[in-house]
Amino acid sequence: MKMHLLTAAVLVAGLATSGAGLAADPAAQADSTEARRVDKKTDQFRLQRITPGYWRVTIDNPPFNIYGPRAMPQLNAVITQIEQDPDVRVVVFDSAVPGFFLTHYDFVPPLEESTEMPAGTTGLPPLPDMLVRLSRAPVVSIVSIRGRATGVGSELALASDMRFASREKAVLSQWEIGAGLVPGGGPMARLPRLMGRGRALEVLLSGNDIDGELAERYGYVNRALPDAQLDAFVDKLARRISTFDKRAIADIKGLVNANSLPSNEEIGKEWDAFIGSVGRPSTQQRIGRLMEFGLQTNREVEVHLPDYTVKSGTPEK
Amino acid sequence: MKMHLLTAAVLVAGLATSGAGLAADPAAQADSTEARRVDKKTDQFRLQRITPGYWRVTIDNPPFNIYGPRAMPQLNAVITQIEQDPDVRVVVFDSAVPGFFLTHYDFVPPLEESTEMPAGTTGLPPLPDMLVRLSRAPVVSIVSIRGRATGVGSELALASDMRFASREKAVLSQWEIGAGLVPGGGPMARLPRLMGRGRALEVLLSGNDIDGELAERYGYVNRALPDAQLDAFVDKLARRISTFDKRAIADIKGLVNANSLPSNEEIGKEWDAFIGSVGRPSTQQRIGRLMEFGLQTNREVEVHLPDYTVKSGTPEK
Amino acid sequence: MKMHLLTAAVLVAGLATSGAGLAADPAAQADSTEARRVDKKTDQFRLQRITPGYWRVTIDNPPFNIYGPRAMPQLNAVITQIEQDPDVRVVVFDSAVPGFFLTHYDFVPPLEESTEMPAGTTGLPPLPDMLVRLSRAPVVSIVSIRGRATGVGSELALASDMRFASREKAVLSQWEIGAGLVPGGGPMARLPRLMGRGRALEVLLSGNDIDGELAERYGYVNRALPDAQLDAFVDKLARRISTFDKRAIADIKGLVNANSLPSNEEIGKEWDAFIGSVGRPSTQQRIGRLMEFGLQTNREVEVHLPDYTVKSGTPEK
Repeated sequence: MKMHLLTAAVLVAGLATSGAGLAADPAAQADSTEARRVDKKTDQFRLQRITPGYWRVTIDNPPFNIYGPRAMPQLNAVITQIEQDPDVRVVVFDSAVPGFFLTHYDFVPPLEESTEMPAGTTGLPPLPDMLVRLSRAPVVSIVSIRGRATGVGSELALASDMRFASREKAVLSQWEIGAGLVPGGGPMARLPRLMGRGRALEVLLSGNDIDGELAERYGYVNRALPDAQLDAFVDKLARRISTFDKRAIADIKGLVNANSLPSNEEIGKEWDAFIGSVGRPSTQQRIGRLMEFGLQTNREVEVHLPDYTVKSGTPEK
Repeated sequence: MKMHLLTAAVLVAGLATSGAGLAADPAAQADSTEARRVDKKTDQFRLQRITPGYWRVTIDNPPFNIYGPRAMPQLNAVITQIEQDPDVRVVVFDSAVPGFFLTHYDFVPPLEESTEMPAGTTGLPPLPDMLVRLSRAPVVSIVSIRGRATGVGSELALASDMRFASREKAVLSQWEIGAGLVPGGGPMARLPRLMGRGRALEVLLSGNDIDGELAERYGYVNRALPDAQLDAFVDKLARRISTFDKRAIADIKGLVNANSLPSNEEIGKEWDAFIGSVGRPSTQQRIGRLMEFGLQTNREVEVHLPDYTVKSGTPEK
Repeated sequence: MKMHLLTAAVLVAGLATSGAGLAADPAAQADSTEARRVDKKTDQFRLQRITPGYWRVTIDNPPFNIYGPRAMPQLNAVITQIEQDPDVRVVVFDSAVPGFFLTHYDFVPPLEESTEMPAGTTGLPPLPDMLVRLSRAPVVSIVSIRGRATGVGSELALASDMRFASREKAVLSQWEIGAGLVPGGGPMARLPRLMGRGRALEVLLSGNDIDGELAERYGYVNRALPDAQLDAFVDKLARRISTFDKRAIADIKGLVNANSLPSNEEIGKEWDAFIGSVGRPSTQQRIGRLMEFGLQTNREVEVHLPDYTVKSGTPEK
């Protein structure tokens, strides 16, 4: 823990001089940021075929399961297989990293790494493209949330078909407002459809952590289960679904989608608003302060993010 | 119980040779199936005018309140009266059969009995036609659910204006996926509007039983009440509504409908998908096995349907 | 109490001869109603700037916080400032009147006072215009409900972005059906989007009081909090939001709105239906009887309005 704090201090020194990725002018920093990026791991999304019909995708990018541009092709490979495999009926997403399901976008890589990626098969930029394809795939996607599902983690959960959470250990949030950011992966379209406009606005405009119990009450997740029961519950449900007819699954899901999904265009607008919000000076200032506090390096900051976002908007003394 | 199992075995012998209704080639079986159909009762939907403004429709087709093609004209007569009567303001649907509110479609009659019926006044086939008309009628419809409301029973509940359930004795489900079927009466359009896409997909793609408490938590029903209070609660609410102005009821309901109902076209697609799913070999095989287990004859199978649907997809040893 | 009843009786005598506002022919009564109107107070909506970013609007029209046509320009002034101020990020609406948040439309002023007001900037009549503008303003609106939020009070709450209620002291309702009225301020469009069609129809067609606990369960409010915690909770949330970036708030809210708000046209239809319902003889009769019972004068009637609406439809003995 101590070490993380020291590391953060060192990194922030570099930040202050060279700028850092989404947090500053990206042109001048392609080299200096390499050491600090969090997505160096090559198997951040680990696919396991439990049976031909039942797959598991385990998110494993310690220490905080931050999501950066290099994860895009990995997640894309997973989703492409889900779309094309003739046998798979159900996919469960979970995490191998204690305390973190999947969290926020990586602020270290230069912005171009995100904006210059080619569009996906839907014509949308990669992240919204993959989330939209997951929602439309003829396969049941289930997230099993233990730890923090914030930002991209919440957005992956919302794009999935079903969400189950640990009552004690899950935390969901769209924390982005606290950094002056507009979330980019679809929650403004998806949250009001799940929980109504009022609760969606509370989640999105408070940027607060939502624990498992409240997430269930709000409809953010299907159910919050006692942590000790979560894995068995999800496994039993997935095995059950994996015995069903693939064509019937696809037809039922397709008809539900026609009555519940936002258009791809609506989703696309959110990514544009996210990119637009990154560059604003007030946002840059907030992200800079969050990086100083220890975002991406200090577990304390990641775990209590809503406290630090408020501090990031308070003038330094 | 023993007897039912024996009966089932005998019937299944017939099934295996002659085929049986939705479960096999319907052409060759018009006679042999007559003895086995469940909808011989002529007053399956019993209409009682408690007051001119407050009607009650009691479903009474023992032993399991299965819904077959012969029930269509009976339900149609009820709904036509609801639409046309100048005085009725509120109609309560309940069941006279212990353990069963209204369950699944009858698999014994030949498929043509269902597909050759003339379209209803909306242009939709009879079952979706009647459900759509109930939703749009200028009268308040309330279901009081005690026992199993699965398949058609769930669909009638979803097409009604309000749903109240016995906390201890109500079970709702769309079990059809377990037989390789796509539900035909509107739940893919109606469930996500009530409970959001995630919970709707769980109901539809797990095919699991949903008890009263969970049904309330998910918004599948307005409320689950202690069984001992259900009847008095519903009766008091219906009597209250029956004193209100019919024109104001119609105007309010019409404005809510404009903001909440799926289009008739969306509902129509579900019936087409249901009919399309019946004939697929894998579905035929699952229905055949369910009939062997005792579907429509053995109370044990009807009551624990989700256990038997999984078994129906498991290869015989 | 006695006095109020007597006053009511006297007033009703006047009513019966001269007619009274929305309750009868409005042409002949401009003078006689002046003494009885409830909106004589000139600061019914009191605006307080707690900080430049955090405002509070306190509703203060004792004894029952009834909303009449004279309140229109006051509420309009408040909403115009919310729309135009460059600093405000969050506005909390609360009440200074014990037992009442904001209640029903004033039945005393002549109907013309309501129907002859010029349309607002959206082209809608004043009340729906202001509610629509509040929903679309680039500022977060929060209602803190203690006491009765019925009719206009419920409609203001539904048009706001978030709703928090006292678990013990909040009551929400759309009671209008009980007087033969169609609500005019948007609830047929807004309620089903928050709580689904079934619960929305129950609220609108039962006209019953919904307490804080049930309001939370139905999604009528974001949360019902213990009364002793409500003020601190709302204040903390509002202060938090007031530190966030105004542009990010506006962008996020705008994207949520695009995915959740009814069209202005849908809202406009409800006002037309309300005005249409006022003049019908059966409605006139119900409102007349409610005024006889003590509506607008007797606290007992205001507090137990659902009991008196049923009585208003029962023929006198």
